[in-house]
Amino acid sequence: MDKELVMGIDVGGQSTKLGVVNAEGEIIAQTVISSLQEELIDYINELTKAIKGLIAETVREGKVKGIGIGAPNGNYYKGTVEYAPNLKWSYDAEGKPTVVDLAALVKSFTSLPVTVTNDANAAAMGEMAYGVARGMKNFIMITLGTGVGSGIVVNGEVVYGHDGFAGELGHTIAIRNGRQCNCGLKGCLETYCSAMGVRRTAQEQLAKHPDVKSPLRSIDPEKISSKDVFDAAETGDKIALEIFKTTGEILGRSLADFVKFSAPEAIVLFGGLAKAKKYFHDDLVAAMEENQLQIWKGRIKVLYSSLKDSDAAILGASALAW
Amino acid sequence: MDKELVMGIDVGGQSTKLGVVNAEGEIIAQTVISSLQEELIDYINELTKAIKGLIAETVREGKVKGIGIGAPNGNYYKGTVEYAPNLKWSYDAEGKPTVVDLAALVKSFTSLPVTVTNDANAAAMGEMAYGVARGMKNFIMITLGTGVGSGIVVNGEVVYGHDGFAGELGHTIAIRNGRQCNCGLKGCLETYCSAMGVRRTAQEQLAKHPDVKSPLRSIDPEKISSKDVFDAAETGDKIALEIFKTTGEILGRSLADFVKFSAPEAIVLFGGLAKAKKYFHDDLVAAMEENQLQIWKGRIKVLYSSLKDSDAAILGASALAW
Repeated sequence: MDKELVMGIDVGGQSTKLGVVNAEGEIIAQTVISSLQEELIDYINELTKAIKGLIAETVREGKVKGIGIGAPNGNYYKGTVEYAPNLKWSYDAEGKPTVVDLAALVKSFTSLPVTVTNDANAAAMGEMAYGVARGMKNFIMITLGTGVGSGIVVNGEVVYGHDGFAGELGHTIAIRNGRQCNCGLKGCLETYCSAMGVRRTAQEQLAKHPDVKSPLRSIDPEKISSKDVFDAAETGDKIALEIFKTTGEILGRSLADFVKFSAPEAIVLFGGLAKAKKYFHDDLVAAMEENQLQIWKGRIKVLYSSLKDSDAAILGASALAW
Repeated sequence: MDKELVMGIDVGGQSTKLGVVNAEGEIIAQTVISSLQEELIDYINELTKAIKGLIAETVREGKVKGIGIGAPNGNYYKGTVEYAPNLKWSYDAEGKPTVVDLAALVKSFTSLPVTVTNDANAAAMGEMAYGVARGMKNFIMITLGTGVGSGIVVNGEVVYGHDGFAGELGHTIAIRNGRQCNCGLKGCLETYCSAMGVRRTAQEQLAKHPDVKSPLRSIDPEKISSKDVFDAAETGDKIALEIFKTTGEILGRSLADFVKFSAPEAIVLFGGLAKAKKYFHDDLVAAMEENQLQIWKGRIKVLYSSLKDSDAAILGASALAW
């Protein structure tokens, strides 16, 4: 008899990662496509081909019986991606973000059952099953990627809320009337503590200190990445260190407020920016403690995903398909 | 055979309300004591006597088999009240808020099983069983009393979190570096949208507009109550109307962020200040919508408790005892 396999798909703002997972929780094959297509039909075309390619690649290992997808603004109840500002193919002809029936589309072209959730919820499920949150019943996953996502686990279960959209902590207001966010609001946490946010902080810091030399000045300001800032920090660059310090402080203040909601055992940070933890962790924890109620001072762990790159999200999404 | 009864106790910053509840969810006897004692022994003494009095009063109706208590910073797992800044008897000899083992104390003097929870969690349970949240699986209860409390219901269950303290939304930061809160932080929602907060807003508004006449000027500024402001608003007083407008705006902005956490079907407002809803509801909803993500615009209900005064909290606390 064929072994049972499932597929996990992690839709990010830049790229979409696909993996086939066996019953032991091992990713036995994976691939990646771009998420930057402007037209929905182009994205679905590439996605469908990648899915079929992976299924063909693993046919001797077993039978893929279902697909789980983690996507920004993914809705667990409806299988949709709704109003996702960082995905161009989710905009309608008039340029407005709209509702994409992702589960129905992928199911139509693959004939497999498809379940969708928020990408950060998927990462939380992966972290709970295979990562640093193993055995935890209450934690908050914060994904620091192109944007800032979140997955909230209460009593061992992901919180979906009334409508399936729970966990949009990246769009809680970090600074009232602050930076304009793609979502339409101002001052969202995402505008400070994502890859986009770090770039804007870099632009601001470079402009604010015109006399301070920095390797970041040799990079197109519109293309500064978290990796660039990390590399500059590694050389001792003051601007880069200041960028991470600010980022850590703003994130820490917001995390203090998130704790007041669900009293988690830990907050788990994940995503590209988390790789620079040595440059922001202390400032993050200091800001979090400074803004914390007495009952939680010194008691909430701040952890970093130990899973390789996108593995948590692929594994978590795949868990939906079992 | 004796009918089974339970007792529900609602510990508020000003007063503690006790009620005996029958299996039909009716409060068949109730009484109230002050919460303002400075010494723990005095509070427990009065509380114990009130409990025994109510039990004696209802002895012909049935047998009280347990006690449920809702209290600020009440811990469901441990039966304690910890670091409750608004309860003087919870401070130690050095004037620092401390841990009161409320369940153990009440059990010692009554020989009844005692369960403790956050006062707002108790109100949420009462609202879910008997009030406007009947049948709802996901909602957030905000209690606007001496302070601001919250009870969060996800999938039909109160969120307690890892340590039993979940739901301290009154201490999320509404205005960064804003008003000093009793909890030690600055700018907590509670410093703006509680009875204490309304008083401070009144003091500020009166000072800011010295030339505007207002009936509030005839009241000792340290004693202005939400009821005073309501009465002034009823006469068309501009200062009073401005106070409620500001209060509604600040609360609405915070509520928008709370929705991003658990995507509730509704937010239920409760407590003394909620009685002035006609003067702040529209501004609250406008501010909430303005700060809301597209996916939730116009979709989250803002409801007001329909249960009489403290009934929700007594009924909710009593539900713990069944």
